[in-house]
Amino acid sequence: MWRPFFQPYHLIIVQDGDPTKTIRVPDGFDYELYNRNDINRILGPKANCISFKDSACRCFGFMVSKKKYIYTIDDDCFVAKDPSGKEINALAQHIQNLLAPSTPFFFNTLYDPFREGADFVRGYPFSMREGVPTAISHGLWLNIPDYDAPTQLVKPLERNTRYVDAVMTIPKGTLFPMCGMNLGFNRELIGPAMYFGLMGDGQPIGRYDDMWAGWCAKVICDHLNLGVKTGLPYIWHSKASNPFVNLKKEYKGIYWQEEIIPFFQAATLPKECTTVQKCYIELSKQVKEKLSPVDPYFQKLADAMVTWIEAWDELNPPAQTAPLDEPSIKKDEPSPKPK
Amino acid sequence: MWRPFFQPYHLIIVQDGDPTKTIRVPDGFDYELYNRNDINRILGPKANCISFKDSACRCFGFMVSKKKYIYTIDDDCFVAKDPSGKEINALAQHIQNLLAPSTPFFFNTLYDPFREGADFVRGYPFSMREGVPTAISHGLWLNIPDYDAPTQLVKPLERNTRYVDAVMTIPKGTLFPMCGMNLGFNRELIGPAMYFGLMGDGQPIGRYDDMWAGWCAKVICDHLNLGVKTGLPYIWHSKASNPFVNLKKEYKGIYWQEEIIPFFQAATLPKECTTVQKCYIELSKQVKEKLSPVDPYFQKLADAMVTWIEAWDELNPPAQTAPLDEPSIKKDEPSPKPK
Repeated sequence: MWRPFFQPYHLIIVQDGDPTKTIRVPDGFDYELYNRNDINRILGPKANCISFKDSACRCFGFMVSKKKYIYTIDDDCFVAKDPSGKEINALAQHIQNLLAPSTPFFFNTLYDPFREGADFVRGYPFSMREGVPTAISHGLWLNIPDYDAPTQLVKPLERNTRYVDAVMTIPKGTLFPMCGMNLGFNRELIGPAMYFGLMGDGQPIGRYDDMWAGWCAKVICDHLNLGVKTGLPYIWHSKASNPFVNLKKEYKGIYWQEEIIPFFQAATLPKECTTVQKCYIELSKQVKEKLSPVDPYFQKLADAMVTWIEAWDELNPPAQTAPLDEPSIKKDEPSPKPK
Repeated sequence: MWRPFFQPYHLIIVQDGDPTKTIRVPDGFDYELYNRNDINRILGPKANCISFKDSACRCFGFMVSKKKYIYTIDDDCFVAKDPSGKEINALAQHIQNLLAPSTPFFFNTLYDPFREGADFVRGYPFSMREGVPTAISHGLWLNIPDYDAPTQLVKPLERNTRYVDAVMTIPKGTLFPMCGMNLGFNRELIGPAMYFGLMGDGQPIGRYDDMWAGWCAKVICDHLNLGVKTGLPYIWHSKASNPFVNLKKEYKGIYWQEEIIPFFQAATLPKECTTVQKCYIELSKQVKEKLSPVDPYFQKLADAMVTWIEAWDELNPPAQTAPLDEPSIKKDEPSPKPK
């Protein structure tokens, strides 16, 4: 189903779980495959910052990629159709979102002013119409919505059937729940902030990997004047994960987030933080200081954030950074790893 | 066309221009009609805060109303159809928007979580799910978009054909261009901030009446923890106003807004401002201090803001305030006044 959409791109597959198992990739795809042994070999002791038995392991793919644009998708997501019945080319829409500027400083009531048939409305300051570069494109899901375990339990039959034909910039200073199911980003602009944290095996928490990356990345985008968009494209999310299993993974997150979100809402970064890496290291210090009282886990997480940046810089020394005008596009496909 | 939708409600018609002309209101409507002589008689010397020969005069209707919910619409707006071809009941949607809470503290990626078939997504803090009361419901326009004169001149043929099936809260701290063409609000929550300023006859500016009200109202809503929604319902905007005339009215606003918007973005209100009136008086002081250097007009406007509140309180003494649970609904229909 995805073949015509994914085949033009380079795939990175991060195999989660038992590395002795063999993943069969269908013919005709240009891909790299990494299992846990590869991660350990490539990162050495720094491999401990990459989660095991959790979808968070996908961020290893972000680190080893050499492409400018990344797309990541869950293995239970399929091609969705727009209201006219046409199959949606999710990658094309993400690229379009990432190539057009964002407008985080003032709200445009007709949504993305750069779409065909739209513009800035009366009263939109002209000095703000240039916009800022877009770092993140957050796509949505038809059919099974991305609900937490309590909402899944309460509304087991709810399906998202509403196709909202909009892309919009999330305003500066506003946080959002970033879902990793259908997500594009510009690796050169925000890559080092796309760390999915310590989740799953040996950790007290799961299903907060993308949320963690979203909170950190949004704070850093706001600081560096980069844009975050949400809305189109939709993918078809085929099956709900088990709400009882999810509840077990989530329950600490559900109360921790009541303290984590005010922390990120109040977080400010000093002027000296002029790169994503510097911002991320500074954020790790603030996490250690302000969130460790919530749970010792955050001390470990703050250390892993530093390790992640060290590993990133090791694998991505400045000289090897892709040139800014590289037109190639890449997709990280963690499937068929279990979520 | 509007009859079935407006007839159940009480209309206030503010007749702009020559008061000796007679406006014929079709049979069967429950209405009050005010012309300039009425405004002068009712407000006395304070009538100078109500604009003449400009759509801004409509705010007199907000002041004399005794209802809880206000709807205001331009005279060139007609009933729009949704994608299924069904006529849209704009008032019903505005009421729905105003009755459901807003969620200004965190962005919900599936838009209004209180709509049928939607909810808060994974990662949305539970403590923020109660939301806050909604003060303003900003509706949109199909066909002729609400563009400024320069954009009208550049894109004379652009039409808005995109029906975006969404209602969303504009996040706290984010300003937006509030258009008065299709606007609902809760008069008890935000009425005194809905002043449309000094525009038109004898003033150096026009077509910024609704923008002014929107900037002030949003800052006050943010301070008082009230919500502002935008999106559905759509109306059909039938004709573009003359871009050359608009340019003449707007041109000062176009460069003033470059200073006005940063002013409102930075404006903060002290804790002591616990009512809309107190907030508005405080804002008038800040306007006088910070915007008078831009143009002496803002000194006059700041004084008119104070006069407006004095007139509001005179016509709306606390004892006469409608009880909070009054279920009645009201519409202010400035039509058939020329825009």
